[in-house]
Amino acid sequence: MKTPRKSCPLSKVYGLLEPGPVVLMTTAHKGRRNIMTLSWHTMMEFEPPLVGCIVSDWNHSFSLLKASRNCVLNLPAVELARAVVGCGNTSGAQTDKFKRFGLTPLPAKKIGAPLIQECHANLECRVVDTRLVSNYGFFVLEVVQAWVDPAVKNPRTLHHRGRGSFMVAGETIRLRSKMK
Amino acid sequence: MKTPRKSCPLSKVYGLLEPGPVVLMTTAHKGRRNIMTLSWHTMMEFEPPLVGCIVSDWNHSFSLLKASRNCVLNLPAVELARAVVGCGNTSGAQTDKFKRFGLTPLPAKKIGAPLIQECHANLECRVVDTRLVSNYGFFVLEVVQAWVDPAVKNPRTLHHRGRGSFMVAGETIRLRSKMK
Repeated sequence: MKTPRKSCPLSKVYGLLEPGPVVLMTTAHKGRRNIMTLSWHTMMEFEPPLVGCIVSDWNHSFSLLKASRNCVLNLPAVELARAVVGCGNTSGAQTDKFKRFGLTPLPAKKIGAPLIQECHANLECRVVDTRLVSNYGFFVLEVVQAWVDPAVKNPRTLHHRGRGSFMVAGETIRLRSKMK
Repeated sequence: MKTPRKSCPLSKVYGLLEPGPVVLMTTAHKGRRNIMTLSWHTMMEFEPPLVGCIVSDWNHSFSLLKASRNCVLNLPAVELARAVVGCGNTSGAQTDKFKRFGLTPLPAKKIGAPLIQECHANLECRVVDTRLVSNYGFFVLEVVQAWVDPAVKNPRTLHHRGRGSFMVAGETIRLRSKMK
Protein backbone atom coordinates (compact mmCIF):
# COMPACT_ATOMS: atom_id res chain seq x y z
CA MET A 1 0.00 0.00 0.00
CA LYS A 2 1.83 3.08 -1.22
CA THR A 3 -1.00 5.62 -0.90
CA PRO A 4 -2.22 6.59 2.57
CA ARG A 5 -4.52 4.00 4.08
CA LYS A 6 -8.16 4.99 4.30
CA SER A 7 -10.51 3.83 7.02
CA CYS A 8 -13.17 1.54 5.53
CA PRO A 9 -16.72 1.51 6.97
CA LEU A 10 -17.27 -1.71 8.92
CA SER A 11 -20.50 -2.24 6.95
CA LYS A 12 -18.42 -2.80 3.80
CA VAL A 13 -15.98 -5.37 5.16
CA TYR A 14 -18.01 -8.38 3.95
CA GLY A 15 -17.38 -7.39 0.33
CA LEU A 16 -13.64 -7.86 0.90
CA LEU A 17 -13.79 -11.34 2.41
CA GLU A 18 -16.86 -12.90 0.72
CA PRO A 19 -15.08 -13.70 -2.56
CA GLY A 20 -12.75 -16.02 -0.61
CA PRO A 21 -9.26 -14.50 -1.02
CA VAL A 22 -6.16 -15.89 0.64
CA VAL A 23 -5.31 -13.70 3.64
CA LEU A 24 -2.15 -13.10 5.64
CA MET A 25 -2.93 -13.20 9.35
CA THR A 26 -0.53 -11.24 11.55
CA THR A 27 -0.27 -11.87 15.28
CA ALA A 28 1.98 -10.57 18.06
CA HIS A 29 2.47 -11.33 21.74
CA LYS A 30 5.23 -10.42 24.22
CA GLY A 31 7.80 -9.45 21.60
CA ARG A 32 7.03 -12.35 19.24
CA ARG A 33 5.19 -11.83 15.98
CA ASN A 34 4.19 -13.94 13.03
CA ILE A 35 2.50 -14.06 9.62
CA MET A 36 0.33 -16.99 8.56
CA THR A 37 -1.17 -17.72 5.14
CA LEU A 38 -4.79 -18.70 5.52
CA SER A 39 -7.68 -19.59 3.21
CA TRP A 40 -10.12 -21.16 5.64
CA HIS A 41 -12.25 -18.21 6.68
CA THR A 42 -15.85 -17.09 6.31
CA MET A 43 -17.96 -14.04 7.02
CA MET A 44 -20.43 -14.71 9.85
CA GLU A 45 -22.21 -11.36 10.34
CA PHE A 46 -22.42 -8.06 8.44
CA GLU A 47 -22.13 -5.47 11.24
CA PRO A 48 -20.28 -5.51 13.42
CA PRO A 49 -18.42 -7.76 10.98
CA LEU A 50 -17.76 -11.22 12.38
CA VAL A 51 -15.32 -13.55 10.66
CA GLY A 52 -14.70 -17.20 11.47
CA CYS A 53 -11.36 -18.79 10.65
CA ILE A 54 -9.36 -21.93 11.28
CA VAL A 55 -5.96 -21.70 12.94
CA SER A 56 -4.80 -25.17 13.81
CA ASP A 57 -2.82 -25.80 16.99
CA TRP A 58 0.14 -27.01 14.92
CA ASN A 59 0.46 -23.51 13.46
CA HIS A 60 2.96 -21.26 15.24
CA SER A 61 0.33 -18.49 15.11
CA PHE A 62 -2.08 -20.51 17.24
CA SER A 63 -0.40 -19.70 20.57
CA LEU A 64 0.05 -16.02 19.65
CA LEU A 65 -3.61 -15.68 18.65
CA LYS A 66 -4.85 -17.54 21.71
CA ALA A 67 -2.70 -15.53 24.12
CA SER A 68 -3.13 -12.06 22.60
CA ARG A 69 -6.74 -12.55 21.46
CA ASN A 70 -6.23 -10.29 18.48
CA CYS A 71 -4.87 -10.37 14.93
CA VAL A 72 -4.94 -8.55 11.60
CA LEU A 73 -6.31 -10.11 8.43
CA ASN A 74 -4.25 -8.57 5.63
CA LEU A 75 -5.36 -8.99 2.00
CA PRO A 76 -2.58 -9.54 -0.54
CA ALA A 77 -3.00 -9.40 -4.32
CA VAL A 78 -1.15 -11.35 -6.98
CA GLU A 79 1.94 -9.12 -6.75
CA LEU A 80 2.58 -10.70 -3.33
CA ALA A 81 2.15 -14.31 -4.52
CA ARG A 82 5.71 -15.32 -3.60
CA ALA A 83 5.40 -13.92 -0.08
CA VAL A 84 2.02 -15.64 0.31
CA VAL A 85 3.47 -19.04 -0.58
CA GLY A 86 6.66 -18.32 1.37
CA CYS A 87 4.71 -17.49 4.54
CA GLY A 88 2.72 -20.71 4.07
CA ASN A 89 5.84 -22.83 3.66
CA THR A 90 7.88 -21.61 6.61
CA SER A 91 7.30 -21.67 10.33
CA GLY A 92 7.39 -18.54 12.44
CA ALA A 93 9.17 -20.61 15.10
CA GLN A 94 12.43 -20.29 13.12
CA THR A 95 11.87 -17.27 10.88
CA ASP A 96 10.92 -13.61 11.13
CA LYS A 97 8.70 -13.66 8.05
CA PHE A 98 8.51 -9.86 7.79
CA LYS A 99 12.28 -9.72 7.21
CA ARG A 100 12.48 -12.90 5.15
CA PHE A 101 9.77 -11.88 2.67
CA GLY A 102 10.33 -8.11 2.61
CA LEU A 103 7.02 -7.20 4.26
CA THR A 104 6.70 -4.01 6.31
CA PRO A 105 4.94 -4.05 9.70
CA LEU A 106 2.90 -0.97 10.60
CA PRO A 107 1.26 -0.32 13.96
CA ALA A 108 -2.46 -1.04 14.08
CA LYS A 109 -4.87 1.51 15.58
CA LYS A 110 -6.85 -0.61 18.03
CA ILE A 111 -4.91 -3.81 18.62
CA GLY A 112 -1.36 -5.06 19.20
CA ALA A 113 -0.73 -7.09 16.04
CA PRO A 114 0.88 -5.27 13.10
CA LEU A 115 -0.61 -4.40 9.72
CA ILE A 116 1.28 -5.41 6.56
CA GLN A 117 1.94 -2.26 4.55
CA GLU A 118 2.15 -4.05 1.18
CA CYS A 119 -1.42 -5.45 1.45
CA HIS A 120 -4.32 -3.52 -0.12
CA ALA A 121 -6.63 -4.03 2.89
CA ASN A 122 -6.11 -4.69 6.58
CA LEU A 123 -8.74 -5.79 9.08
CA GLU A 124 -7.96 -5.35 12.78
CA CYS A 125 -9.74 -8.12 14.70
CA ARG A 126 -10.46 -9.25 18.24
CA VAL A 127 -11.25 -12.85 19.19
CA VAL A 128 -14.84 -12.96 20.48
CA ASP A 129 -15.73 -16.68 20.64
CA THR A 130 -13.47 -19.67 21.25
CA ARG A 131 -16.06 -22.42 21.80
CA LEU A 132 -15.02 -24.33 18.68
CA VAL A 133 -11.26 -23.82 19.12
CA SER A 134 -10.49 -27.06 20.93
CA ASN A 135 -12.34 -29.23 18.38
CA TYR A 136 -11.53 -27.48 15.12
CA GLY A 137 -9.21 -24.51 15.76
CA PHE A 138 -12.18 -22.32 14.76
CA PHE A 139 -11.92 -18.75 16.09
CA VAL A 140 -14.71 -16.18 15.79
CA LEU A 141 -13.23 -12.71 15.19
CA GLU A 142 -14.83 -9.29 15.30
CA VAL A 143 -13.41 -6.72 12.89
CA VAL A 144 -12.96 -3.55 14.95
CA GLN A 145 -11.12 -1.39 12.40
CA ALA A 146 -10.72 -1.78 8.64
CA TRP A 147 -8.31 -0.09 6.24
CA VAL A 148 -8.20 -0.06 2.46
CA ASP A 149 -5.88 1.41 -0.14
CA PRO A 150 -8.19 3.82 -2.02
CA ALA A 151 -5.96 3.54 -5.11
CA VAL A 152 -6.73 -0.19 -5.55
CA LYS A 153 -10.15 -0.56 -7.16
CA ASN A 154 -10.03 -4.14 -8.45
CA PRO A 155 -7.40 -6.07 -6.52
CA ARG A 156 -6.30 -9.26 -8.27
CA THR A 157 -6.75 -11.39 -5.16
CA LEU A 158 -5.43 -14.94 -4.86
CA HIS A 159 -7.75 -17.91 -4.25
CA HIS A 160 -6.07 -21.15 -3.25
CA ARG A 161 -6.95 -24.31 -5.18
CA GLY A 162 -4.49 -26.48 -3.22
CA ARG A 163 -0.79 -27.39 -3.49
CA GLY A 164 0.46 -23.98 -4.59
CA SER A 165 -2.15 -23.56 -7.30
CA PHE A 166 -4.00 -20.23 -7.11
CA MET A 167 -6.90 -18.83 -9.06
CA VAL A 168 -6.36 -15.11 -9.68
CA ALA A 169 -9.47 -12.90 -9.48
CA GLY A 170 -10.87 -12.30 -12.95
CA GLU A 171 -13.46 -9.91 -14.35
CA THR A 172 -16.39 -8.57 -12.31
CA ILE A 173 -19.97 -8.93 -13.55
CA ARG A 174 -22.99 -7.15 -12.14
CA LEU A 175 -26.53 -8.53 -11.96
CA ARG A 176 -29.68 -6.92 -10.59
CA SER A 177 -29.98 -8.17 -7.07
CA LYS A 178 -31.79 -7.52 -3.82
CA MET A 179 -29.09 -9.44 -1.96
CA LYS A 180 -26.72 -7.60 0.33
CA MET B 1 -23.58 -31.37 -15.79
CA LYS B 2 -24.14 -33.12 -19.11
CA THR B 3 -21.46 -35.84 -18.81
CA PRO B 4 -21.95 -38.59 -16.21
CA ARG B 5 -21.05 -37.49 -12.72
CA LYS B 6 -17.86 -38.94 -11.33
CA SER B 7 -17.28 -39.66 -7.67
CA CYS B 8 -14.58 -37.32 -6.31
CA PRO B 9 -12.20 -38.52 -3.57
CA LEU B 10 -13.10 -36.84 -0.28
CA SER B 11 -9.44 -35.87 0.12
CA LYS B 12 -9.80 -33.49 -2.85
CA VAL B 13 -12.92 -31.66 -1.73
CA TYR B 14 -11.01 -28.77 -0.11
CA GLY B 15 -9.69 -27.68 -3.51
CA LEU B 16 -13.27 -27.04 -4.65
CA LEU B 17 -14.34 -24.87 -1.73
CA GLU B 18 -11.10 -23.14 -0.69
CA PRO B 19 -11.19 -20.54 -3.49
CA GLY B 20 -14.47 -19.21 -2.03
CA PRO B 21 -17.08 -19.81 -4.76
CA VAL B 22 -20.76 -19.02 -4.35
CA VAL B 23 -22.63 -22.29 -3.70
CA LEU B 24 -26.24 -23.34 -4.08
CA MET B 25 -27.36 -25.25 -0.99
CA THR B 26 -30.21 -27.69 -1.54
CA THR B 27 -32.30 -29.01 1.34
CA ALA B 28 -35.40 -31.21 1.60
CA HIS B 29 -37.70 -32.34 4.39
CA LYS B 30 -41.14 -33.98 4.38
CA GLY B 31 -41.96 -33.13 0.78
CA ARG B 32 -40.61 -29.58 0.93
CA ARG B 33 -37.38 -28.62 -0.80
CA ASN B 34 -35.38 -25.48 -1.37
CA ILE B 35 -32.31 -23.89 -2.94
CA MET B 36 -30.32 -21.17 -1.20
CA THR B 37 -27.50 -19.03 -2.57
CA LEU B 38 -24.67 -18.90 -0.06
CA SER B 39 -21.19 -17.38 0.09
CA TRP B 40 -20.47 -17.62 3.80
CA HIS B 41 -18.70 -20.95 4.08
CA THR B 42 -15.24 -22.23 4.96
CA MET B 43 -13.33 -25.49 4.94
CA MET B 44 -12.63 -26.70 8.50
CA GLU B 45 -10.83 -30.04 8.00
CA PHE B 46 -9.28 -31.93 5.06
CA GLU B 47 -10.51 -35.48 5.61
CA PRO B 48 -13.17 -36.31 6.32
CA PRO B 49 -13.92 -32.90 4.83
CA LEU B 50 -15.65 -30.56 7.26
CA VAL B 51 -17.28 -27.36 6.04
CA GLY B 52 -18.72 -24.58 8.19
CA CYS B 53 -21.44 -22.36 6.79
CA ILE B 54 -23.92 -19.71 7.88
CA VAL B 55 -27.63 -20.27 7.33
CA SER B 56 -29.54 -17.59 9.18
CA ASP B 57 -32.86 -18.39 10.84
CA TRP B 58 -34.59 -15.89 8.55
CA ASN B 59 -33.69 -18.09 5.57
CA HIS B 60 -36.40 -20.55 4.51
CA SER B 61 -33.68 -23.23 4.27
CA PHE B 62 -32.89 -22.92 7.99
CA SER B 63 -35.82 -25.05 9.17
CA LEU B 64 -35.26 -27.65 6.41
CA LEU B 65 -31.57 -27.95 7.29
CA LYS B 66 -32.21 -28.08 11.01
CA ALA B 67 -34.94 -30.72 10.71
CA SER B 68 -33.34 -32.97 8.05
CA ARG B 69 -29.72 -32.48 9.22
CA ASN B 70 -28.44 -32.82 5.67
CA CYS B 71 -27.95 -30.77 2.52
CA VAL B 72 -26.03 -30.63 -0.75
CA LEU B 73 -23.54 -27.89 -1.60
CA ASN B 74 -23.77 -27.50 -5.38
CA LEU B 75 -21.14 -25.46 -7.22
CA PRO B 76 -22.42 -23.32 -10.11
CA ALA B 77 -20.23 -21.60 -12.69
CA VAL B 78 -20.82 -18.31 -14.52
CA GLU B 79 -23.31 -19.91 -16.96
CA LEU B 80 -25.72 -20.20 -14.00
CA ALA B 81 -25.29 -16.58 -12.82
CA ARG B 82 -28.96 -15.70 -13.37
CA ALA B 83 -30.16 -18.71 -11.39
CA VAL B 84 -27.66 -17.91 -8.62
CA VAL B 85 -28.98 -14.37 -8.24
CA GLY B 86 -32.56 -15.52 -8.73
CA CYS B 87 -32.27 -18.09 -5.93
CA GLY B 88 -30.77 -15.40 -3.69
CA ASN B 89 -33.58 -12.94 -4.41
CA THR B 90 -36.60 -15.18 -3.87
CA SER B 91 -37.89 -17.10 -0.87
CA GLY B 92 -38.54 -20.81 -0.99
CA ALA B 93 -41.63 -20.15 1.12
CA GLN B 94 -43.47 -18.95 -2.03
CA THR B 95 -41.49 -20.49 -4.89
CA ASP B 96 -40.25 -23.86 -6.11
CA LYS B 97 -36.89 -22.56 -7.24
CA PHE B 98 -36.06 -25.68 -9.27
CA LYS B 99 -39.03 -24.96 -11.56
CA ARG B 100 -38.66 -21.20 -11.51
CA PHE B 101 -34.98 -21.19 -12.51
CA GLY B 102 -34.91 -24.29 -14.73
CA LEU B 103 -32.71 -26.37 -12.43
CA THR B 104 -32.95 -30.19 -12.43
CA PRO B 105 -33.06 -32.11 -9.13
CA LEU B 106 -31.28 -35.47 -9.06
CA PRO B 107 -31.39 -37.96 -6.20
CA ALA B 108 -28.32 -37.95 -3.97
CA LYS B 109 -26.58 -41.19 -3.03
CA LYS B 110 -26.32 -40.90 0.75
CA ILE B 111 -28.75 -38.21 1.86
CA GLY B 112 -32.26 -36.96 1.21
CA ALA B 113 -31.60 -33.53 -0.32
CA PRO B 114 -31.33 -33.36 -4.13
CA LEU B 115 -28.30 -32.60 -6.29
CA ILE B 116 -28.56 -29.87 -8.94
CA GLN B 117 -27.74 -31.43 -12.30
CA GLU B 118 -26.57 -28.19 -13.92
CA CYS B 119 -23.80 -27.65 -11.31
CA HIS B 120 -20.26 -28.91 -12.01
CA ALA B 121 -19.76 -30.31 -8.51
CA ASN B 122 -22.08 -31.55 -5.76
CA LEU B 123 -21.15 -32.24 -2.15
CA GLU B 124 -23.54 -34.39 -0.10
CA CYS B 125 -23.30 -33.25 3.53
CA ARG B 126 -24.53 -34.17 7.00
CA VAL B 127 -24.79 -31.70 9.88
CA VAL B 128 -22.31 -32.77 12.58
CA ASP B 129 -22.13 -29.83 15.00
CA THR B 130 -24.80 -27.26 15.89
CA ARG B 131 -23.20 -25.57 18.90
CA LEU B 132 -22.89 -22.22 17.11
CA VAL B 133 -26.28 -22.33 15.38
CA SER B 134 -28.28 -20.40 17.96
CA ASN B 135 -25.76 -17.53 18.11
CA TYR B 136 -24.67 -17.25 14.50
CA GLY B 137 -26.56 -19.77 12.34
CA PHE B 138 -23.20 -21.54 11.93
CA PHE B 139 -23.55 -25.22 10.96
CA VAL B 140 -20.63 -27.64 10.78
CA LEU B 141 -21.15 -30.08 7.88
CA GLU B 142 -19.32 -33.28 6.99
CA VAL B 143 -19.05 -34.05 3.28
CA VAL B 144 -19.96 -37.73 2.94
CA GLN B 145 -20.05 -38.01 -0.86
CA ALA B 146 -18.65 -35.72 -3.56
CA TRP B 147 -19.36 -35.60 -7.30
CA VAL B 148 -17.64 -33.70 -10.08
CA ASP B 149 -18.21 -33.32 -13.79
CA PRO B 150 -14.96 -34.73 -15.26
CA ALA B 151 -15.47 -32.61 -18.40
CA VAL B 152 -15.12 -29.34 -16.45
CA LYS B 153 -11.42 -28.68 -15.78
CA ASN B 154 -11.41 -24.98 -14.95
CA PRO B 155 -14.89 -23.94 -13.87
CA ARG B 156 -15.45 -20.18 -14.04
CA THR B 157 -16.84 -20.00 -10.51
CA LEU B 158 -18.63 -16.95 -9.12
CA HIS B 159 -17.34 -15.05 -6.08
CA HIS B 160 -19.72 -12.56 -4.53
CA ARG B 161 -18.47 -9.03 -3.90
CA GLY B 162 -21.83 -7.81 -2.57
CA ARG B 163 -25.06 -6.40 -4.05
CA GLY B 164 -25.14 -8.56 -7.16
CA SER B 165 -21.53 -7.91 -8.08
CA PHE B 166 -19.55 -11.11 -8.74
CA MET B 167 -15.90 -11.71 -9.48
CA VAL B 168 -15.54 -14.50 -12.05
CA ALA B 169 -12.65 -16.91 -11.54
CA GLY B 170 -9.68 -15.86 -13.67
CA GLU B 171 -6.42 -17.56 -14.64
CA THR B 172 -4.68 -20.14 -12.45
CA ILE B 173 -1.04 -19.70 -11.46
CA ARG B 174 1.18 -22.35 -9.89
CA LEU B 175 3.95 -21.78 -7.38
CA ARG B 176 6.25 -24.30 -5.70
CA SER B 177 4.65 -25.03 -2.40
CA LYS B 178 4.78 -27.51 0.46
CA MET B 179 1.28 -26.44 1.47
CA LYS B 180 -1.63 -28.82 1.03
